Amino acid sequence: MSQTSQQKLLLLSASREGQTDYLEHVLPMMDVFLPSEVKEILFIPYAGFAMGYDAYEAKVSQALQPIKRKVVSIHQFDDPVKAVENAQAIAIGGGNTFYLLKQLYDNELIDAIRKKVNAGTPYMGWSAGSNMAGLTICTTNDMPIVQPRSFNALALVPFQINPHYTDYQPPNHNGETRAERIYEYTRANPHRYVVGIPEGTALERQGNQLFLRGAKDGLIFRDGEGIKSIKADSNISWLL
Amino acid sequence: MSQTSQQKLLLLSASREGQTDYLEHVLPMMDVFLPSEVKEILFIPYAGFAMGYDAYEAKVSQALQPIKRKVVSIHQFDDPVKAVENAQAIAIGGGNTFYLLKQLYDNELIDAIRKKVNAGTPYMGWSAGSNMAGLTICTTNDMPIVQPRSFNALALVPFQINPHYTDYQPPNHNGETRAERIYEYTRANPHRYVVGIPEGTALERQGNQLFLRGAKDGLIFRDGEGIKSIKADSNISWLL
Repeated sequence: MSQTSQQKLLLLSASREGQTDYLEHVLPMMDVFLPSEVKEILFIPYAGFAMGYDAYEAKVSQALQPIKRKVVSIHQFDDPVKAVENAQAIAIGGGNTFYLLKQLYDNELIDAIRKKVNAGTPYMGWSAGSNMAGLTICTTNDMPIVQPRSFNALALVPFQINPHYTDYQPPNHNGETRAERIYEYTRANPHRYVVGIPEGTALERQGNQLFLRGAKDGLIFRDGEGIKSIKADSNISWLL
Repeated sequence: MSQTSQQKLLLLSASREGQTDYLEHVLPMMDVFLPSEVKEILFIPYAGFAMGYDAYEAKVSQALQPIKRKVVSIHQFDDPVKAVENAQAIAIGGGNTFYLLKQLYDNELIDAIRKKVNAGTPYMGWSAGSNMAGLTICTTNDMPIVQPRSFNALALVPFQINPHYTDYQPPNHNGETRAERIYEYTRANPHRYVVGIPEGTALERQGNQLFLRGAKDGLIFRDGEGIKSIKADSNISWLL
């Protein structure tokens, strides 16, 4: 990337790590990431439609109390595009990636969010909200319960993200492992990088710099290049 | 369903159950299912693109030797639509559901297979090949590595299928369970039934009759109706 980027992204693998409380383990990362002038976060709850947007807003609002930021959900606004244009920071929560992307398209929010974040407004996502930041949703783990207009996502980074990365295979189960699924993706899409981020880790972008955060290693997949391990807290700006 | 159906379907959850060899546990079911006049099976290998169509054809061919049916893959024919029209029986193997459906659309095979099977040609599928027989691929477990033209599948049965059904959750992992994923599907698609078939089981349709085969129970999900268990070998023709 030759242009200077203004982007500030915190892309979390998951809202929990092991037995932690909801968003508990990510609060220190969020607090460092968010500029002190950000007092209010515009929250996009679409992925959690099954629990209801009011309930999701309340849950995130409560979880973020320790870092003293107000959380307001986009479903409270009459004009969601305007809500994005006026946001101090944007956060997209986890849930179903397909439902989320369909709602972003149906509410004409894809271009609005991309433009806003490219201009420097901080963006945080976890799980489905991190998938959104990749080129497409082709490496989500979620069930395709609805069909979005396109698989193209926000493309805030020029690669694919696989959140909740794990290579655990249930005993006596014959579905594909995560690594096998991603391998198939790379075979069908030869020039794309996929970054697998285990629960407890995150990608942080500050302009033209990209880091893996958290205490676990991540993985990078690409067709013909095998699987590369990336160390916790390493600089992986070459991916941009 | 008021019309008389000619359909013969065997929709297997998986190619393996526990530690069995490839397709080993399904051979007795296939042998009973296939009419004796069927000597050759047209095999559709698209879901297994990552292993290569020749290798996939050879693997299935070898696995079906004990039941004395010849297996010929559709990629050996110049005209795949004509190959379907001339088939004695059709089998679609497992792999990636999205890649499979995209290839069926790109090769104009959706209507051809539907017409042929509705006229009485036996259809067998396992894993992704069973997903194909449902209304849509919205309850696949696979990664959406490519985008098919539509999520609409062959609609050989008027409900959704979830193969490899399990409610196992890896220890300390925070992704959704299978039941949670299907629950979200039913919330987003309130009038649809989803049938979860565990590895080792199958759905068998003979005209207007539908049975669960195998030694394990299946599950039926629908919005507002909770989860119903269906006993092994029970008649579930009310779903048609």
